[in-house]
Amino acid sequence: MNLFVIGKIIGYALCLESALMILPLAFTIYYQESTLPFTIPMIMGVLLGFLLTRTGKQANKMASKEGFVSTGLTWIVLSLVGMLPFMICGAVTNPFDAFFETVSGFTTTGSSILTDIEALPKGVLIWRSFTHWIGGMGILVFMSAIVHFGDGSQMNLIKAESPGPVVSKLLPKASDTAKILYVIYTMLTVITLVVLLALKMPFFDALCITFGAAGTGGFGVLNDSCASYTIAQQAVVTVAMLAFGVNFSFYFFIIMKKVDQALHMEEVWLYLFIVAGAILLISLDLMMQNGFSAPFMTIHNAAFHVSSIITTTGYGIDDINLWPHFSQGIIVVLMFAGACAGSTGGGYKISRLLLMWKAALRDLAIQLHPGIVKKVHIDGKPVEEKVIRLTGIYTFLYSMIMIISVMLISLDKMDWSSTITSVIATFNNIGPGIGVNGTCGNYSEFSNFSKLILSADMLIGRLEIFPILALFRKETWRKF
Amino acid sequence: MNLFVIGKIIGYALCLESALMILPLAFTIYYQESTLPFTIPMIMGVLLGFLLTRTGKQANKMASKEGFVSTGLTWIVLSLVGMLPFMICGAVTNPFDAFFETVSGFTTTGSSILTDIEALPKGVLIWRSFTHWIGGMGILVFMSAIVHFGDGSQMNLIKAESPGPVVSKLLPKASDTAKILYVIYTMLTVITLVVLLALKMPFFDALCITFGAAGTGGFGVLNDSCASYTIAQQAVVTVAMLAFGVNFSFYFFIIMKKVDQALHMEEVWLYLFIVAGAILLISLDLMMQNGFSAPFMTIHNAAFHVSSIITTTGYGIDDINLWPHFSQGIIVVLMFAGACAGSTGGGYKISRLLLMWKAALRDLAIQLHPGIVKKVHIDGKPVEEKVIRLTGIYTFLYSMIMIISVMLISLDKMDWSSTITSVIATFNNIGPGIGVNGTCGNYSEFSNFSKLILSADMLIGRLEIFPILALFRKETWRKF
Repeated sequence: MNLFVIGKIIGYALCLESALMILPLAFTIYYQESTLPFTIPMIMGVLLGFLLTRTGKQANKMASKEGFVSTGLTWIVLSLVGMLPFMICGAVTNPFDAFFETVSGFTTTGSSILTDIEALPKGVLIWRSFTHWIGGMGILVFMSAIVHFGDGSQMNLIKAESPGPVVSKLLPKASDTAKILYVIYTMLTVITLVVLLALKMPFFDALCITFGAAGTGGFGVLNDSCASYTIAQQAVVTVAMLAFGVNFSFYFFIIMKKVDQALHMEEVWLYLFIVAGAILLISLDLMMQNGFSAPFMTIHNAAFHVSSIITTTGYGIDDINLWPHFSQGIIVVLMFAGACAGSTGGGYKISRLLLMWKAALRDLAIQLHPGIVKKVHIDGKPVEEKVIRLTGIYTFLYSMIMIISVMLISLDKMDWSSTITSVIATFNNIGPGIGVNGTCGNYSEFSNFSKLILSADMLIGRLEIFPILALFRKETWRKF
Repeated sequence: MNLFVIGKIIGYALCLESALMILPLAFTIYYQESTLPFTIPMIMGVLLGFLLTRTGKQANKMASKEGFVSTGLTWIVLSLVGMLPFMICGAVTNPFDAFFETVSGFTTTGSSILTDIEALPKGVLIWRSFTHWIGGMGILVFMSAIVHFGDGSQMNLIKAESPGPVVSKLLPKASDTAKILYVIYTMLTVITLVVLLALKMPFFDALCITFGAAGTGGFGVLNDSCASYTIAQQAVVTVAMLAFGVNFSFYFFIIMKKVDQALHMEEVWLYLFIVAGAILLISLDLMMQNGFSAPFMTIHNAAFHVSSIITTTGYGIDDINLWPHFSQGIIVVLMFAGACAGSTGGGYKISRLLLMWKAALRDLAIQLHPGIVKKVHIDGKPVEEKVIRLTGIYTFLYSMIMIISVMLISLDKMDWSSTITSVIATFNNIGPGIGVNGTCGNYSEFSNFSKLILSADMLIGRLEIFPILALFRKETWRKF
């Protein structure tokens, strides 16, 4: 294990985090708030980061192992520094709360322990939403785009941080892949912001909501999430969330004028099919309960929440706790499904659903006719058997972690609906559940122990298990 | 697809079912009840069965495909005939209820739609419990022990019907394997019965409870399940349930005087470790709630329920709905775990847990050190990669079916706890859940649609997905 290179990666990440705090700092100055919540962590981050980047000279030798470990550790360290603004401004006094809130931001979960977010200083609110944007595409991916430390090393970092069963290089060089991802990400973000501004959303709200939608996070600036925005603004958010839940390869193909390849992405089609089906079923169910008098508003409501949940964003405009059970059931199914791989969304990922379903039918065929040879194909290309095996193992760990977490959270003696959906909503990086943690995703009632478990769930879910699991293995630390 | 051989298998199974009805028939005669509930289905079964066995001459050619399909169809047909006694005696008037109750019996689930089981005729009660015993080790395994139709064909049937990731022949011949399994099964059953009788349990109760424990089913004869039996009797049931949840290879090794091999079965050790851990945690949790005044009774209660749930039996002596949340959480975890492979228990199976956990650590090691070659070993033997892949796919389908079932059951607008645990309890062949379907496992409040879905879940869970999934594939029915 090369501890120097890990130190270096964390060091760079800390410097980057300090640099990114310039945005909220600017807001504190503009709104004439105290600048201490940002200046203190910025100075700490730069000093610590600078020291760490100077630890050794072997920076270019990073193997798969170091990629995993530095990804896991970086996210924890960034959260520990990123939580300082909440504590320094005085809005949060319990460090477990501050850690939870920051992890929730970076992992684009959007679960909150704050009961009155409107009371927060503007600078802290911007930082809170900005963490979504930073975490959405991944801070190490961002770093790979601007710092150069060897192509293989960078790809190992991108692989460890990016979601989905297979992470492919879009361009031959890892840093170019990282750059193009951030270019697409930034473009889509700017478009969303401009459209919201054109629809007369106040600049501050528009920026925060855009960050939340882009990272599929879900932090808002109003206590009622998105309920008090206009129908048009909500509709834009619906479309924006859906767009950020699409595999970014899709946009890459479009930019490269490979429209044909973009239109043949099975994952994207399945994603849209599930979205359309869920909107239809929920709309019908809601109309059966509430009457057929306002069909447009019912569909609008259904579409907003389907888009919000499947992309694991977590914004709300309606109280899901009051929805009929079947609609709630569909929402829970969507919570598991998650968005496309290679998007900013969390969850199990549509590509895994697609892959495992195809693999199940293939293996059923093999069991029925032993001896036949048949490969699983996605987008016309054969999938390695190893990927299927690893996805199966991922599915197992994914279920195990949730089941054990539910057991631990049950120590809090909440009702079962809150207990179970708190785990589902944090592990899949969604935010709100069904129960006390309903539409606005409030987790203030949980104990410190539960907040720590749920924080861990958010990190494990965002980094897709292995980078965090690796931290707890003897093998990882052997042969120093 | 060779429809003749499938017809033949179903035919034999129907004749066997009719023969097995001699037991409840004897009870109806002894208790001077109407014999019609059994004579009618017996005559129907024998006639239909005889006709089906005469359909063709190609009986010996059964490939893997026919093994799957005949297993799936046999279980459905046996349930359709096995439900007739409930309807003819007048205790059940709704055919969905009768089908549910019979499927629940054969699949050793133990969920019931009856609200007053003590009012049932004795003959029907014995039949109800006897279905557990028949389904526990598998009716096709039984058939393989007495009817001869080619070694390969028989092994295909045993494989399709027996639970667990790998089904191994204990003896070179399939029919000998089936015989030894039934010898062990019968011996353990007789021992349990004798001990219960020695402890002065009435013969009728002792027989039914033994059938329920042996098949890990859970149907009782009293409305309060096992609560009114003596402590000693309950303790015997605790041990009996645990014993039937052990992989039968363990007993086979003991009989063959391969004690060393028996003691090296990792699955059995993990099973006992989980049982001990769960009893300890629940006992502590219960004592924290109820005080430390009766430690023996608390441990007794905890042990009974842990044994009942992990073996997927479902007997109860206490109201779990009143237990603290953490204990309920542990019970839910045990619901998923299930018993050992190659036992009469249901659920995910300890062997799958063990295999997937080892595979996860192995694949993490490979991800950390690409290039290393490492096999997963169970009981000192290397496991084929294909088995890991198939277990992963099983895990995926297992989760998917439960999630989709929960969505469908939510149409009933029950509370979430009942909705979710009804699916977990039926799919894993346990019986009672937490909620309206609590300790006695009563499902009478669910709609006919839900009863049908839950019946399907019981069958899919018992046959471990593939035989039922195969029925719905075009490929299965092609090339007739």
